[in-house]
Formats: sequence, C-alpha cells, structure tokens
Amino acid sequence: MIDAHRSSVAPTPTSGGSSASLPDSLPAAPLPAVRPSVALLTDRYELTMLQAALADGTAHRHCVFEVFTRRLPAGRRYGVLAGTGRVLEALPHFRFGDAELAYLERSGVVDDRTLDFLRGYRFTGTILGYAEGEIFFPGSPLLQVEGTFAEAVLLETLVLSILNYDSAVASAASRMTSAAVNRPVLEMGSRRAHEQAGVAAARAAVIAGFTGTSNLEAGFRYDLETIGTAAHSFTLLHDDEPAAFASQVASLGPGTSLLVDTYDVRRGVENAVAAAGTGLGGVRLDSGDLGVLAVEVRRQLDELGARDTKIVVTSDLDEHAIASLAAAPVDVYGVGTALVTGSGAPTCGMVYKLVARADATGVLQPVAKASAHKRSQGGRKVAARRYGPDGRAVEEVVVSGPDDRVVAWSPEDHASADRAPDAPADERGDLRPLLVPLVVDGAVDSRWVGGYGVQNAARHHRQARAELPRGARRLSSGDPAIPTVELTLD
Amino acid sequence: MIDAHRSSVAPTPTSGGSSASLPDSLPAAPLPAVRPSVALLTDRYELTMLQAALADGTAHRHCVFEVFTRRLPAGRRYGVLAGTGRVLEALPHFRFGDAELAYLERSGVVDDRTLDFLRGYRFTGTILGYAEGEIFFPGSPLLQVEGTFAEAVLLETLVLSILNYDSAVASAASRMTSAAVNRPVLEMGSRRAHEQAGVAAARAAVIAGFTGTSNLEAGFRYDLETIGTAAHSFTLLHDDEPAAFASQVASLGPGTSLLVDTYDVRRGVENAVAAAGTGLGGVRLDSGDLGVLAVEVRRQLDELGARDTKIVVTSDLDEHAIASLAAAPVDVYGVGTALVTGSGAPTCGMVYKLVARADATGVLQPVAKASAHKRSQGGRKVAARRYGPDGRAVEEVVVSGPDDRVVAWSPEDHASADRAPDAPADERGDLRPLLVPLVVDGAVDSRWVGGYGVQNAARHHRQARAELPRGARRLSSGDPAIPTVELTLD
Repeated sequence: MIDAHRSSVAPTPTSGGSSASLPDSLPAAPLPAVRPSVALLTDRYELTMLQAALADGTAHRHCVFEVFTRRLPAGRRYGVLAGTGRVLEALPHFRFGDAELAYLERSGVVDDRTLDFLRGYRFTGTILGYAEGEIFFPGSPLLQVEGTFAEAVLLETLVLSILNYDSAVASAASRMTSAAVNRPVLEMGSRRAHEQAGVAAARAAVIAGFTGTSNLEAGFRYDLETIGTAAHSFTLLHDDEPAAFASQVASLGPGTSLLVDTYDVRRGVENAVAAAGTGLGGVRLDSGDLGVLAVEVRRQLDELGARDTKIVVTSDLDEHAIASLAAAPVDVYGVGTALVTGSGAPTCGMVYKLVARADATGVLQPVAKASAHKRSQGGRKVAARRYGPDGRAVEEVVVSGPDDRVVAWSPEDHASADRAPDAPADERGDLRPLLVPLVVDGAVDSRWVGGYGVQNAARHHRQARAELPRGARRLSSGDPAIPTVELTLD
Repeated sequence: MIDAHRSSVAPTPTSGGSSASLPDSLPAAPLPAVRPSVALLTDRYELTMLQAALADGTAHRHCVFEVFTRRLPAGRRYGVLAGTGRVLEALPHFRFGDAELAYLERSGVVDDRTLDFLRGYRFTGTILGYAEGEIFFPGSPLLQVEGTFAEAVLLETLVLSILNYDSAVASAASRMTSAAVNRPVLEMGSRRAHEQAGVAAARAAVIAGFTGTSNLEAGFRYDLETIGTAAHSFTLLHDDEPAAFASQVASLGPGTSLLVDTYDVRRGVENAVAAAGTGLGGVRLDSGDLGVLAVEVRRQLDELGARDTKIVVTSDLDEHAIASLAAAPVDVYGVGTALVTGSGAPTCGMVYKLVARADATGVLQPVAKASAHKRSQGGRKVAARRYGPDGRAVEEVVVSGPDDRVVAWSPEDHASADRAPDAPADERGDLRPLLVPLVVDGAVDSRWVGGYGVQNAARHHRQARAELPRGARRLSSGDPAIPTVELTLD
C-alpha cells in the first residue's frame, strides 16, 4: 500500500546529496535495546579518577560517601525516597564484562592497570540508608556507601540516577494519593517517560500509594497489579461504538471499563450500559470538564440502573486536579504525565558526596568541599526522627561528630540528653532511627528487592506519612513539614 | 567498620513488628536489571484490545496510526524530533518470549488465542516518519505506522515513550546549542535522569548539537565522544589539592581538566598551573557566580602564562544561563539537570492516534475522535516544508484528503498549484517533503540506527535548524517559528 519511492516521501539521507560527514560503512547489527551489564551507566570521570587513584595508591583508602539533597523542590513539604530496591537489584549487575572492557580499551578511556581492576570489580562494601518509602527532608543522609574509594566512587552515577528519578516520582505520587484520600489512583504514564523510566515510575507510584499500573513490565518485575481500559483507537477500529463496546464486553466481560468519550459522552454511556447491562464495571472519561461530566454521567448511570458502575477519570490529572475533583462523583483517578515527570519536579537534587576517608595512616577523617558555594557538612552522619507525645514527627535529627561517636550513637543516649528530659514519651519512643542496613560486606539484603521490597516500601511509606504533623500533606507551597536539626557530638 | 546491629541503625522491616501484609517467602533471585525483550514495555490495554479485536475479526483490519503533538511547550518556537533510531533499534526486540508469555498467562491478562498470536508476533508493516533530528511543529505527522490493527496497536506505548522523552531532550538541547553559538556544549546529566534515560538523553543531546557526553554507555552504544574532568571527591580523597592535581596530571597528562573550586578558586588555579604547567588543558568551575569567576580565572590563567587553558563551566546551566554567559570568557559549557529534564518540558505531548482503517470491505476510511475535546484530523497525512526565495522555511504544509490522493501527492503538484506560482523558486525547490521510509514491510532501514543514525540525525538537525526563519532561535517565549497550514485535497 505504501510505495517507498512515492514523491511525497523524502529520499533517505545517503541516497542523495553529500554524505561526506558520514561513515563509509553501514553499522553492523545494532546492539540489543538493553544490555545485562549496568557498569557503563557511569560518568567517564569516575573511571579516570579511579585510574589516577590506582596509580597513586589512594584508590584503596577507606571512604564513606553520602547521598543527600540540599533542598526540596520549591514549596514541597517533604520528599519520598524511592529507588533503593532498584539500586540493590542493579548492584550484582555492576560488572565489567568482555564487551565493556573492550569498549573502554579501544576508546582509550583508561589504562591497562585500571582495566585489570575493573575486570575483577565487585562491590564488597556496606550500604546503609533510609528505608525505601521513607519521608525525607533537606540534609537527610539517604544512603551511605562505605568501602574503598575505588569501589564506592564507581557507583556514583548509577545510584544517583536511580534515586533521583524514582524519588521524584514517589514524591509527586504521594501528594496525589494524599489528594485522592481513599479513592484509588492508577498509574498510566509510561508513554510520557523514557520506556525504562516508565517501569521505575510505576514501581515508585505504587510505593507512594498508587493501586496499580498500566505498565506490564512493571507488573512482571514487581508483582504489581496491572490495570487498563481501552483506547479511542479501539472504538474507531470498529464500524460504530455499539460494535466496539459489544466486542469489548464479549471478550472481557461486563466488569470491564468502557471509554465513552470518542463521539458523544451521553450516547456513549447509553451504548455502554446497553452493551454490558447494569453490571457494567466502569466508564472512563478522558477529556472535557471532568467535574461537570462526572456529575452528569453519574446521574445518567444511576437513571439507567447502573448504580455500581464506577467512573474512571483520566486526562492530564495532577495532585491539584485530583483535589479539585474531591466533591465530584469520581471513583478512580488515572494519572499519567504529571506522575512520570514528578509533577513539576522531574528530578531530585540528590548528590553523592565523599564525607569521610582514611588518611595515610588509615584513620578516617571527615572531608567536605570548603569553597563559598555548595558547602556541605563533613563526616559520616546518622539520623533519627523525633516524635511528640501525640506520635507525630516533630523534627529530623541529623547527628555528626567524631566517627566513632557517630557510629556508636543511639537514640536512647540522645533521649537521656534531651533538651526536655522530663517530656512525656509516648509508648513507641521519642526517637526513631532512620538508617537501615541494605548491603553488608557486599551481600544485598534481599528483603528490599523485587515485589517483596515494593510491598515493604509501600507499607513503610503509609506509616511514615501518617506520622507527619497535621498540615504536612497540604498541597499548597510551604516549608518542610518538620525542621532538620543538626546534633553535633563532641 | 560498620556494625549492622549498632543502635543508631533501625531494624530491618521484618525483624520486628507485624509482617502480616508481607508475603511469607523472600523473593527468588531478582530479575536482571534489564531484559532483552521490550514487548512488555506496553500498557495492558493494548493487549486486552487486541484480545477483543482478535475475537471479533477486526484485529486484521489494515490501519494507519500517526504520531503528532497538538502543541509545543508554552513559548517554544519549534520542537526537535529524536528517538526515531531508538524505535527502530527496539523493534526487532519487540518479541513475546517464554518469560513474557508465562507472565501474561499466569496473571490472566489475555486469553489463549491472544497468547498464540503474541507468540508469533513480529511487526511486518511499514513506518514512515520525519527524519530524526528534524524540526517539528504542532500537527506535524512525525511517525506513521501502517499495518494490521493487531501489529500496529501493540507499538503505541513503546513508540510514544521513546519519542516523547528523546524529543523533549533534543528540543531543549537545540536551544542550548543555539545559545552557546560556537562554543562546545557537553552533556553531563545522567545522574539526574533514570539510568537508561540518561543514555537516551546523551544521544538526543548529540543529535541537537552537543559535542560529547559523560555517559559511557551512550559512548559505547552510539560511538559518541565521551568527556569528563574530575569530581570534588577526588580532591578530597587526597591529603591536599596539590597532591590531587599532581596525581591527575601524572595519570591523565597535562591536557586534563582540573576542578579548581573545592577549596578556594584562586588557590586552585595556582595549584592547577603549578601541577600541569602552562600547557594545562582546562579548569572547571562548578559553583559560584560563573560569569564573574570566569573573568577572574581567565585573567589569572593568562597572568600565569596558561593562555590556552580552557575554562569549563558547569552548575545547573540551562539555555538562559548559557546565553547570559555569552560575554564571559567561557570556553566550554557542561549541562546536566536542565538537559535531561527537557528544561521545563520533560516530555512532549505526542499521541499515537488511529487515523485510518479498513472497513469491512477492505477500503481504507479516515477516522477521528469526534467529541468536543481533543479533536484530531482523520486520514493519513503527508507533510512538506515550504521555503521562501531566501532558502528559509516559511510554513509547514500538512496534506490530507482521500487516501489515494494523499499517498500520490507530490511537492511538484503543489508547487504548480502554488498560491503564488510566479514566485521565484530557489535552487533547492520551494517544498521539501518531510516523511522518509524507516521500515518497509517489517525491514528496518539500518541507516537510521546505531552511531551512524545519530550522525545522520545530527547533520539533519544542523541543516533543518539553519533553514528556520531569523528569530526562530530566540529563547524568549513566542509562537511557533512557522505556521502549520493544512492543505486538503479533493
């Protein structure tokens, strides 16, 4: 049906004109769309720094790197950590195999000594971090990677890529599920994100309270509930709307959701109930003034006797649109673009900073950038969240000081040295430690990965969010929900 | 050094408290971080629509789907298409293998008939589209997928994911390289995007004129130039800055770029030239008032005799920051966050719409959503760009009408029926057809894939951008650079 040489089609790039700037030969068969090793998902400078450090001997200095963010996106009251499980899943695949090493060699990125090191690389250090799903604030030490410089520096880009994207999505998603109160929110944004990012976004959304996702790969990888209705193309494929609806109901049963806004919504609802009967599962509205339409459609469904048929709304929803529909008879929200792009904050500003390293005598010393801008606090931290007598969080405590004292610090010590030692403590204690072990001596704790890890994280998020102060979940701009307090040990 | 049971570390989630909502068993070994099949990077509804259409016989109707966007991001004057080559690279991997089919079966997504169809699925249709790197406007028919409903509908999510993300990045990147005029711009944003999105972003950036990327996987996959300097952690790893600089120069040579803002910039520049000599390749500034600092550092470098040492600036640059540094003695820009997040527009609003399908007698009929909102024009389109006598684009012509006439339409026909037939035509003709064949009967044209495809696309983008009207490259908000004109054939 298509003639590739028809005149309305432009010639291919090398069939005419100069090809002087193009290679002489066509490429060999392209690489697979994805590759098993994640080791090259890395900035070049990590490998060249490694080369220099291997040459001068500092590569083997013991180091602690910390991930944190200096600020929340403008007006946001809290962030939600997501991606930790994906970091742990990726870690065993951070290996330099023949293909990776051959590339590094032929492109001259690093020298032979470094290639030898990379050939044997595996992470043997220890990683602590906030639990996935945890709430965070500026300065929260979200991940702590401890090992030699050589093994820890290589993870910088991969760790940040995962945590920055996944947490941006989870942070937006948590506002959406807050706004929806008890109505389910479904993730449908894959098409508005990089194809692999869509999978991560679905996972992060579920951690922050979404009920399911349209993304099948996410369903497969993480045992998530997958959901879906139908597209306008399905209706348009058929001779008319009744034929399309009859086909969908015949194939998927009356419990399916029918998309009723291809032609005329009122007619669409009529056709839908005619096709499925009053047991129709749902109708989807994907355009128009959803608040007004939902009222009209609810009334029409009720009049037709389809009182249990749910109304699913989609169409560029974000947390504000969800909140504005609170009084409308909407049963389910489907969210796409705003979810996968972090609703205005498509990445977190997390950084991966060296905070302590051994000196020439092997003693761990705090280090920090010291010029005027982007200062940060040197030294390893631990963190805890303080709760008031009503069980709600009141502050984030970030503890720094001499490394041995920080490592040994316990919330009980702090409680005993509390600024208000006679304050009543609620039954769950007034300080909750926030760092958990994720990788110990290179061994990944499998409770954080796969579908199990997602359920863990979702449960953790529900609980941590419920403990925020009243008002922390408002959508309006404001300061962080609780202040971060630095506690410096002597 | 770390005691996982120390008191400042929280217990793992199942070591205390209720685990009632968690599965009984820990997960088996996690899936690899990425998988070879891309077939599940798909919204569930595509498979359930397929199931219904297979059952009613419409799955085999011949269809044309088109990708287009209804509008550009607010104030943008043009978009840049990127991702086409990645779509073509992914296509051979869109296969349902045993793992994918077993998942679909056990999760009950589709019935046995559909599983059988999916087992044999490969795309055998034809895809035309704008050349990768092409400029586009609202309504431009960017990709046209033709085949049976069954084979074309399955590609919706994957195609949109790739084009929406990659084009968002390329559209932002083109503004950045415009703002930089002839200074090189380097891509350093991997850490602020999903780890696989970072690879795609690097590729899209190079298409839009970036010189190189820090991302090694992108270098590997697409033969891109990789670049890098050093991180603050490298300086902090060493006992002092002179030791760090000496190590980097010893390992990487004096042509390396040294990061001079860890402690004090003036001292850093001194130390840098002391370590590398006046042949030092570059210094990088990553914080502070870059315009002021660049002037001071340039003067200092010149006084020290390092007249050829380049100044590389990074630190949350976007196109506006780049433009504001036009008068500063900056040699190279490094861009991260703003690039990979589309500089305020992290996704394009591209949609994948059924525009024509065969009726029961096999005749192709135009179709379109007809309700009040999100209307679109039915029927297959072709497109061409009209040029004025000065060789600059004046309008985007989108041709629709009876399918046989649209397919047969040629720019020459239109030129002869031109509204100003006596206008002087420049030597390259006044209408340039915009659709090129990408896949013909399932066979991918390999000139669009791999590193070769990226070079093609980058060259195409340079040329297409150079032909825009004067003013089209301004950064200020405005209308699309040229209007889109619909030409409807009888």
